Amino acid sequence: MKIGRILRDGVDGPVPRLVSVHPETHTVLDLAAEERRRLVDAGASARRAARLAAAQFPGSLSEALETGPAFTEAVARVLADADPAAGLPMAQVHWLPPVDPPVLRDFNAFKNHEATAPDVWFEVPLFFKINPSTLIGPGDEVVWPAGCEHLDYELELGLVIGRPARDLTPDTARGALFGVTVFNDFSARNLLRYEMEGRLGPAKGKDFSTALGPWVVTTDELDLTDLTMTAHVNGEEWSRGNSGSLVWSIEEILSYASRSEPLVPGEVIGTGTVAGGSGWELGRKLQPGDTVRLEIAGAGWLENTVGKPDPVRWQPAPRTRAAAG
Amino acid sequence: MKIGRILRDGVDGPVPRLVSVHPETHTVLDLAAEERRRLVDAGASARRAARLAAAQFPGSLSEALETGPAFTEAVARVLADADPAAGLPMAQVHWLPPVDPPVLRDFNAFKNHEATAPDVWFEVPLFFKINPSTLIGPGDEVVWPAGCEHLDYELELGLVIGRPARDLTPDTARGALFGVTVFNDFSARNLLRYEMEGRLGPAKGKDFSTALGPWVVTTDELDLTDLTMTAHVNGEEWSRGNSGSLVWSIEEILSYASRSEPLVPGEVIGTGTVAGGSGWELGRKLQPGDTVRLEIAGAGWLENTVGKPDPVRWQPAPRTRAAAG
Repeated sequence: MKIGRILRDGVDGPVPRLVSVHPETHTVLDLAAEERRRLVDAGASARRAARLAAAQFPGSLSEALETGPAFTEAVARVLADADPAAGLPMAQVHWLPPVDPPVLRDFNAFKNHEATAPDVWFEVPLFFKINPSTLIGPGDEVVWPAGCEHLDYELELGLVIGRPARDLTPDTARGALFGVTVFNDFSARNLLRYEMEGRLGPAKGKDFSTALGPWVVTTDELDLTDLTMTAHVNGEEWSRGNSGSLVWSIEEILSYASRSEPLVPGEVIGTGTVAGGSGWELGRKLQPGDTVRLEIAGAGWLENTVGKPDPVRWQPAPRTRAAAG
Repeated sequence: MKIGRILRDGVDGPVPRLVSVHPETHTVLDLAAEERRRLVDAGASARRAARLAAAQFPGSLSEALETGPAFTEAVARVLADADPAAGLPMAQVHWLPPVDPPVLRDFNAFKNHEATAPDVWFEVPLFFKINPSTLIGPGDEVVWPAGCEHLDYELELGLVIGRPARDLTPDTARGALFGVTVFNDFSARNLLRYEMEGRLGPAKGKDFSTALGPWVVTTDELDLTDLTMTAHVNGEEWSRGNSGSLVWSIEEILSYASRSEPLVPGEVIGTGTVAGGSGWELGRKLQPGDTVRLEIAGAGWLENTVGKPDPVRWQPAPRTRAAAG
């Protein structure tokens, strides 16, 4: 099952819609529209069918996943009964990020070659959080944040949580996972380095644009331990890796994230960058106008173009240690 | 204006409700219920009045604030017409966190006495993010997370954003602020120290319980530059400070947070701990069963009791640098 989100024109402006994605026929199926048709065919009034279909398939994947197994059952029901002519051509849809995560984490779970990596990176699977308000989807322009001197991509696997969970262990962790998507953790290297020196972790160096997409593939369709991952910039391959090189397994990531802490449906957890999966490691920088295309075999590809630098409109005046300490 | 959230029994279980808070009469007013009554008195059908009142006053303050100035105008209309007998006794309500922030940030904006503070702490107002899924409200028990050896409170002012904003400057920043609340940034000191060594910043050391409440006071009711802040543990005063000792002003905090990054209605930004506003600085530790009461003059007090330690159910096996690097 492949689930995406698109924007469609409505009477009151554009509305987000959940779709089932069918790359083999280059179409997507609007789930609420098909459910409405199915209900009307079975005798429901048009008005109640629309209301019920909207409740079953809201524009938010997080909300849809909150309904539990009823969500995938409802998708299966729609697909079993779908009108083959009802698909929308993929080439013409306006994609949104496939999920609207209430929480967005990013781990550091792949092999890395930083000689200066702190010891604790090898003791537990560390992570930080990203502002989900800065999510972008397929085709969206990447913000070049004020003060950024080195914009970079990061080639990652995004884990989409499917059900509420807490205190998972590696034995139980897989049950909490709904699917995966491509995750581009765009980074402002100079801001990030600065913030990491401050020990409070990534903030302005990450919270400007994080790209997810093109859709979410459910875990039954993929072998998560052997996914080829590539990054192309302006058509040239810069990075190539494989999800099999994770140092901390997906089960360990989910277990650690959920220790004394809830996981909620729709939240997204990045694995961190596969080795060699960023310009930083290659000594290369993105430029305004560059097109970055990340691909994970079986999960599709995610392309974004880098925007123009935001000007620095305001800069705080530094304090002296004597006055502020 | 003071806005809180409470839980009330409904046909399908407990439902969150927005309330206007009136400490002078020890009552709260259920805004949707009063709006419904007002609409019915003016001639609406009971069913449509209930539907419209629920849309105007949803259980989420973030969603209510998304309606813009129409929200405070609607509250003012309800208060102008309120039935004096309709108030619920404050002593009997089940409080929720007053706001359900889509994003939860915490700055480091007060004077601090850490001799080892990195230079960057004095160059810009740094911050980290907290998992909003771990929010607790007045009276809720604090999770003692697995592996925590030193549980602590942090006495902070919480800033509640009222409208979408981006690239604010100190001149324009105040307009984005809806109100303030008491913010207890509970911390697991040993986990936090560990994570800060890893430079990815606070994660398990913060993401277990963050307390907000008891309600949100709109900015017109307070002088934010002179608020007395106190912490009592089991009735004994441990901390006392004043919001006037901020090293980075509220305007600078909002400006920095919004640089190349959106602020959204309902999100909450902590100022960081006022000097002396934690047990860490006093050489004291909380114990299971302790009651922590934070008070900000004019904004009410927020009390929470510390729970029993969560057991460590699973611990990741460390990697070697040779294998993982």
